[in-house]
Parts: sequence; C-alpha cells; structure tokens
Amino acid sequence: MDRTPAHTAATTAPAGAAPLDLTLDAAALTAALVDFPSPSGEEKALADAIETALRALPHLTVDRFGNNVVARTHLGHAERVVLAGHIDTVPIAGNVPSRLDEDGMLWGCGTCDMKAGVAVQLRIAQTVTEPNRDLTFVFYDNEEVAAHLNGLGKVAEAHPDWLAGDFAVLLEPTDSQVEGGCQGTLRVFLKTKGERAHSARAWMGSNAIHAATPILEKLSAYEPRKPVVDGLQYHEGLNAVRIEGGVATNVIPDECTVVVNFRYAPDRTPEEAEAFVREYFADCGIDEFIVDDHSPAARPGLTHPVAAAFMASVGGEARPKFGWTDVARFSAFGVPAVNYSPGNPILAHKVDERVRASEIPEAEARLRAWLTD
Amino acid sequence: MDRTPAHTAATTAPAGAAPLDLTLDAAALTAALVDFPSPSGEEKALADAIETALRALPHLTVDRFGNNVVARTHLGHAERVVLAGHIDTVPIAGNVPSRLDEDGMLWGCGTCDMKAGVAVQLRIAQTVTEPNRDLTFVFYDNEEVAAHLNGLGKVAEAHPDWLAGDFAVLLEPTDSQVEGGCQGTLRVFLKTKGERAHSARAWMGSNAIHAATPILEKLSAYEPRKPVVDGLQYHEGLNAVRIEGGVATNVIPDECTVVVNFRYAPDRTPEEAEAFVREYFADCGIDEFIVDDHSPAARPGLTHPVAAAFMASVGGEARPKFGWTDVARFSAFGVPAVNYSPGNPILAHKVDERVRASEIPEAEARLRAWLTD
Repeated sequence: MDRTPAHTAATTAPAGAAPLDLTLDAAALTAALVDFPSPSGEEKALADAIETALRALPHLTVDRFGNNVVARTHLGHAERVVLAGHIDTVPIAGNVPSRLDEDGMLWGCGTCDMKAGVAVQLRIAQTVTEPNRDLTFVFYDNEEVAAHLNGLGKVAEAHPDWLAGDFAVLLEPTDSQVEGGCQGTLRVFLKTKGERAHSARAWMGSNAIHAATPILEKLSAYEPRKPVVDGLQYHEGLNAVRIEGGVATNVIPDECTVVVNFRYAPDRTPEEAEAFVREYFADCGIDEFIVDDHSPAARPGLTHPVAAAFMASVGGEARPKFGWTDVARFSAFGVPAVNYSPGNPILAHKVDERVRASEIPEAEARLRAWLTD
Repeated sequence: MDRTPAHTAATTAPAGAAPLDLTLDAAALTAALVDFPSPSGEEKALADAIETALRALPHLTVDRFGNNVVARTHLGHAERVVLAGHIDTVPIAGNVPSRLDEDGMLWGCGTCDMKAGVAVQLRIAQTVTEPNRDLTFVFYDNEEVAAHLNGLGKVAEAHPDWLAGDFAVLLEPTDSQVEGGCQGTLRVFLKTKGERAHSARAWMGSNAIHAATPILEKLSAYEPRKPVVDGLQYHEGLNAVRIEGGVATNVIPDECTVVVNFRYAPDRTPEEAEAFVREYFADCGIDEFIVDDHSPAARPGLTHPVAAAFMASVGGEARPKFGWTDVARFSAFGVPAVNYSPGNPILAHKVDERVRASEIPEAEARLRAWLTD
C-alpha cells in the first residue's frame, strides 16, 4: 500500500541515499550506516535498505515485520546462532555525517551504539555463506525508547520462531569484550502509614516518615551478594532510588514511600527475587508493598558448547553484565545470550560518540573465525 | 483623602449597614458583627464601623493605621492591659448571615474565630469607663492570611508604642479557658549528599537516601521534653514533616532532604532552640543544615501580678498553648500574653462554625470583673 520510494520514506534519510554496499570493509560500512540517520521511530528507510541488501544474498531467507528484518540460513545444522542488533539511534545532535579523524577514530551518532555492530552483522551475512552453524540475523527498531515499542519484543511476540536458536550475540558495544547475561531489576514501593496531626501536637498523630526508619536501616545494612553464575561473578544491589513523604510543613505526615530497586544475579528467578525482597523487609512495619516494575535476569549461558566455542574464538575473559539489556528477551524464551561488539559503552548516547575504526573489522574477523572454523 | 462612604467601601459590606450598636448584649453584637462580612483583605468597612463606634466613647483615644484600630484609656494607672483581636475571617462559605437556633447556638462565619471575641472587646470598651488598669483595645486585619500581611505585625512595626502593656489577652477561641504563651517553631532542612551512579552498578556511587538513616533514627528515638514554664506544662516535638530524595528510578540518588519541625517550649530562646537541633543531629553525617523558618516561643507570663489577678477572675485552670499564635508577637516586644475567649477552636474555619450564645456575655462578665474589681 505504501507507494513512497523506500529511500525517501524517512524524512531524515539523505536524498538519493545509495543502497547499502555490503562489500565495503566493516569500518566503511559503519560510516555509511551512520550517514543513513535512523533515530528511533525513523528507521523505515534503513530497514528498507537492509532488507534490500539481504534479499540479494541467495544463502539467506529474509522476513520482515514492521521495520524489523530477520534473515536466516537453513543448512540443517544441529546448532543455530543468532546475531542481533538494533538499527535505531538516539536523536542526532549535530554529529552526522560521520568523520574519520587522522588517529583512525570514527565519530558520529550511532558509531558506537550500535552501527559498528550492525556493520559487523551485515559483513558476516555477506561473507559467511557456508557457516558451521545455522545463522539468524536480527535487525530491530525502537531499542532506544520505551520498552513496549522495542522491535525485538514485537518480533518475539508475533514470530517467536524467527528468533529460535542455541545462543545469541547482541552486538551492543562492550569494548570488544564478552559481557554475559544480565542482572534482573525489580522496583518496589514500600509504603508506611501514619496518622495526620498538627505538628504542634505531634503526639495526637503518628509519623509515617519516622515509621520508615527500619526500611532505611535495612537498606544501610544490606551486604550485596556476589554469586558466580555460569563462570561469571555478578554483583547484586539493593537501593532506595526515591523517597517521599509529607503533607505540609506543619502536619505530621500520614504516608511515606520508599522506592527500592533490587538488581539481582541471574541465578534467581523473578519469583525468588521478589520473595527475597519481601522477606528482607518483613519486619519493617511496611503497610503496603507494591511491585512497580520487574524485568527478569538472563543467564550468560557460557556453559553451552556453542558459547564455549564462541569464547575460544573471540578470546578475552567474559564479564558479567550488571545492567538490564535485551539479552534478557532472548533468555526469556530459552536462548542464552551475551553482548559483544567494538565501542566503549560509556560513549553511547554522547555527542562525542566514536569508535576506533580498526576495532570493527577485528571483531568481524573473530566472529567469522568462530562461525567458519 | 478617601471620599467613599465608609459603609459601602467594602464590596461585601451589606448595603446600608447600620452603625455598630455597642449597647447590644454581647451575643447580639456578635451576630451583628457576623452579618458584617469581613474576609481577609475586605476589612475596611468593619474597621470604619469599629473606629466610628469607639470615637463616640469619650474615655478612649482612638488611633488608626491601615485597617487596624487601637483605642486606649489614659488614666495614669501603674498597669496597662491589652485586649486584642483580629477582625477578619476566612472566606464566607454560604454561612452568612448568622442564625441563632432554638438551642441557643449562634451559627455563621466568624462566630467562633473570632467575632465573639471582638464583641467582648467592644462591650468592655463600651461599658468599662473607669477600669482599674489602663486599657488598650487592638482590632487588626489579615490574621487569616500570610504572616507578612498580619495587621498586628504592621502596627508593631510602625507604632510599637500603641501596643505597650504589662499583659495581653488575645480573644481567640479557647472554649473560655486560658491558654498561655505559645511554643516556638523552628523548621530546618537537613540534607545528605552522595554520588550518582547507575543503580545497576550502585557500588560506583554513594546513596544519599541511605545516608539519611541516622537522621530518621534520631527522630524515631526522640523523647519529648515537657517542661513547666510559669506554671504551665508544655510538650515539645521534633518531627520530620517532609522527606525527599531521588533522581530517577535507575539512579543512585546524590541528595536527600529531611525537613524537620521543632516545636519548643517558651523556656528556650530561639538561639537555644537552634543550638539544640544542631547538637541533636550533630553525629548524623549531615552535609547541609539550613534554617528555613523560625518563630520564637512566648512565655505565658502568668507569674505577673496582673496575670494572676486575671486568672483569679476568669477561673479555671490555664492550659499551655502548643501551636504558634499571635501572642508571640506581643511576647517579642516584652508583653506576656494569653489566649482567652468563648468558642471551640476546633470549629474555626469550618462551614458549620458556631458558638454557644450564652458563653459570650459570660466571658464579658469575667473580664469586666477583672478590670473593675
């Protein structure tokens, strides 16, 4: 129904943008992707270009759902590996087009998060025509915005079979180190109640802020657990991220809310994590315990043979991932996943975002070695 | 300069309102005052009427400043007593004109707070032409609104000599019981600081909400002092009235503020009160201590002979006043003061505000006895 030519559909796409040339080296392809702006919500033109480029490769079948593109081999291998990456970026901030400086640093919006990774995916798709394991390439939209818009989540819901596999690599920036799994995150509201009174006659009421003292005491006394899961050491955390209470400056407050964020290692199920928090604050006189948000952890799955082969190929030492990432979406339907890609994650979303150009073909080469050995 | 006829100057004044008739009995005069609406900011017509009525009394000199009227005897007595009351009310809420029910209850806006008291003042001014102590009557505006608008404060600043005296009675509703002095109120902000970090890597930062734990512990452990001052037992209070901290639900907060209200007995000076609070929280790791607001306490002064005579005349037992009231304005320039008037203070500002009509002439009679014995 859409009659708009693909390359002019997104307002931010450069006029007359050339089709993607997957024969470029990975650094040059990264630059081409950066010069093809695709902030969240404006990924259509880039998704079109990726789809077109992949459909030209006879060893792949290509599916599309919205602005999400999935390409797969069907070689009948016993194992299947998923390489996934989001194609959107945060808003452009005067940092497009890309620029390669004399020190070999490639600057521009998305260089690091994560068009370098997308370039590596596309290069593997282009060059590894006879992989030693079946391959699935996932390019998805809306990762940088609200979770309910996330393209990977939408594909998982509509076409879970497209994402099936034994192991997944998300090409999010990790400084070319393997970051395995991710910790879960649970947010709860702990409310204490009291009774209002004029603060000149405080003894007529009951102070809900004072009633929150045991909660803060337990938070202050918390000793983080640091379990080793699939060979990686995680580091849990239990923190107040917000506190509020008070009616007026002359009123004894009748309610206080402590918002607590529990970051937990992937050896806990969501149910166990919630039970831990309930138990930990059980004696604190909490009047209301509300689960506000909960995203489960993901195991790194590094004990699987395909993951062990991956580690052997890319080298280095796997690190645990503390923050929640999209690997948990794979984990949720049984595919262990890690993050791995060039680029310093600290530079993501910054105006001076950049990546060392030479890192990109190096990462490509390591992945190729794993998939062709 | 103002050529507007007095009785039509305020938009809420009844058209053709009769001059105040001070020969009415105190309950009827209260009803007449209620039927002369004077919400804060619209007191001019009533101030005009009071001034006119008082100027007709040859034993008094009358001064006016804004909508504040001060009338005094000059009999050369060794002692001077001040009777003070505000003439404004909270906004009318369909509860004017006044209504006397068959049980002898007088209903209407200001019946209780505090036109019954103003009626008593006016009746004493009318009837006690040869008092045993010199008398000062103060009628002031804007008590029910922001403190900086308060008419008593404005007179104190512009004409402090008009308010001089040995003892003052504010005719605020107290159920016809003497309420002596008032407690001071100090509000401080106690701030703790930390360092932001992503809540997935909490150990990279420092949690300012957790750092507030010792403050809440001290608040929870606080045991109020209940000193006897001039024969009245006060009851101090130290309470958090607000707490806030938090940046975002995935960020370790770098600041937390606990707003603490200290209500203190009139045996402490403001300096002593502040020193107490600083000392009490000295070991709590507070990064900023900010005094936000401070209104000193007022001693009841019941040990003064004129006050003792007052107590003997009105009877009952004096009670301490816990909340801050305008008596502290008198105390601030050396005039001990109490509250005393008919009417249940709980009914002040309510739509169903009322006062038992018979209480009003009873209070008048007791004050007259004290001032003529």
